[in-house]
Amino acid sequence: MRRSDAPPTMKDVAREAGVSLGTVSKVINGIPVGESYRRRVEEAIRDLGYRVNTYARGLKTNKTNCVALVMPSLHHPFFAHLTDELTACLMRRGYRSLLMITDFDPEAEQKCFDMVRQNKADGVIALTYSPDLEADDSLPIVTIDRHLNYSVPCVSSDNYAGGELAAEKLLSLGCQKLLFVRIGPEIRGEADRRGEGFEHKCRALGADYTRLILRDWETEAPIYRFLDQHLRDGVLAFDGIFCNTDDLAARVISFLRTRGVDIPGQVQVIGYDGIADYATGRYACSTIEQPIAQMAEAAVEILLDPDRVFSGERCALPIRYIPAETTRD
Amino acid sequence: MRRSDAPPTMKDVAREAGVSLGTVSKVINGIPVGESYRRRVEEAIRDLGYRVNTYARGLKTNKTNCVALVMPSLHHPFFAHLTDELTACLMRRGYRSLLMITDFDPEAEQKCFDMVRQNKADGVIALTYSPDLEADDSLPIVTIDRHLNYSVPCVSSDNYAGGELAAEKLLSLGCQKLLFVRIGPEIRGEADRRGEGFEHKCRALGADYTRLILRDWETEAPIYRFLDQHLRDGVLAFDGIFCNTDDLAARVISFLRTRGVDIPGQVQVIGYDGIADYATGRYACSTIEQPIAQMAEAAVEILLDPDRVFSGERCALPIRYIPAETTRD
Repeated sequence: MRRSDAPPTMKDVAREAGVSLGTVSKVINGIPVGESYRRRVEEAIRDLGYRVNTYARGLKTNKTNCVALVMPSLHHPFFAHLTDELTACLMRRGYRSLLMITDFDPEAEQKCFDMVRQNKADGVIALTYSPDLEADDSLPIVTIDRHLNYSVPCVSSDNYAGGELAAEKLLSLGCQKLLFVRIGPEIRGEADRRGEGFEHKCRALGADYTRLILRDWETEAPIYRFLDQHLRDGVLAFDGIFCNTDDLAARVISFLRTRGVDIPGQVQVIGYDGIADYATGRYACSTIEQPIAQMAEAAVEILLDPDRVFSGERCALPIRYIPAETTRD
Repeated sequence: MRRSDAPPTMKDVAREAGVSLGTVSKVINGIPVGESYRRRVEEAIRDLGYRVNTYARGLKTNKTNCVALVMPSLHHPFFAHLTDELTACLMRRGYRSLLMITDFDPEAEQKCFDMVRQNKADGVIALTYSPDLEADDSLPIVTIDRHLNYSVPCVSSDNYAGGELAAEKLLSLGCQKLLFVRIGPEIRGEADRRGEGFEHKCRALGADYTRLILRDWETEAPIYRFLDQHLRDGVLAFDGIFCNTDDLAARVISFLRTRGVDIPGQVQVIGYDGIADYATGRYACSTIEQPIAQMAEAAVEILLDPDRVFSGERCALPIRYIPAETTRD
């Protein structure tokens, strides 16, 4: 892809130094690595003339004033609200928003990135699912919820804290046997930290918990089977459930109610996302709310900052708990 | 706005002939008008060298391969789904979709049109609310649900047939005292034809109906007051309600249930839009479904057709009825 006269990238530094991209990232960010690694990376940076804060990190000078938004779909309200907020943020700054819909297709995702690389936009804000997207350093990218590689900033809600908060809430509401249910894509993303935070808090508080993690979001049948296996005479073996999305929570709640389970009487449920129904303003379940407007603001700020220096760190924005009809608070 | 060497527009023809834009439109489309009017318009067209099928109607040759989508917001699922489908249609044809969010602000709407006019897109598909948007003939536009002026094609669902179908359904389900409730913007749009179709069908079938039409969508209080005034001992004076949107239907249903009214036992309700909840796939109410994918396809087809000739006619796409839990079918 790269022409030989293009400025050196982090990948070149890693190749030259014979280390991983992660090691280069650490050295650049001042995170301790073995002394010999550090020296090799620094030498490679010097030899190649690699500049951390180059045009590659900021926006190109040949500006289009256009930022591409790569989204899987606008049928899910989270994606729709995020796209709305991102577009509003860009317009306030005089930028135009080039919308690309991938329908969760890895090829379409790669095609979008290639289009942007062909100079048709100044940068890209992407929410993608392909495990092996090629995004070289010459393309200014900010991702939402997904780490592409060490050199791409990733904005998300504080998923880990959200998981912890869900565990805390369920326990403080009297639950004693907790269940975490996750359904989603095979690829690991920031959203997986919801479960990690939940489990960490359960362990820290000595709580009894079980987890059911599905990496195939095409079918929920295994979840319903699992729930049926843990139902005896209309009583579920768990009294507190944390679902990794509100959508999943809505389906779990609906399923359990058809089985005669009283929610929140017998079982309390918390989801994640926090998007109220447009018409009624009601929440499908008690939930951990993602700060969508702030996430959009942060993604645009990071992308457009001309002095942006490399940072592989996550930008995880504060979440909050919203009680609704599926918990007893 | 127009430079004097720009090609003549329909407005120029109307001015030259001393007639309204509507008269020019009728003459061009072969709709009968008074003979003297017809002659004046034809003379003006000849004198000015006005060409119906000019570059002004098709897309400019200096192409950007970009189409602007002007939308009020993506928080409402109808706008989000429509934007999703429009973008997919454009991408399939090698066009890019420039998203602009106006937040229902007339100034923002005008600004979007001006941006597109400054050659930053080949055309625009717009869903707007301002009563006096300036959109001259040199800007290829297709609108959704709103007539800008006689020269701009408008795509919508067949709102009139939808209203008729709602009346038919409620009557065939045994309702005898019908109510139509409308809430929305002050500006008249295609959606107003829902009520017209409903009333026409009621009159044609000799049915008893009442209407409550609010042209201030900021507050629903008058609707709730009206319903309370027509409630006696928990019985509503109507047994069939058609609401102009599913959102309104959801709120009316919720309100009536808090008053102890049994839906659909005592009162049956039909809404309009037909967008199922993302998580559960359930509909908030029995509804008339808008064919969003076909509307997007039609809007893009009409906009991109290089041989497009002037047509002030509506493109009203077929609707269908979807029964759900708020009617007894």
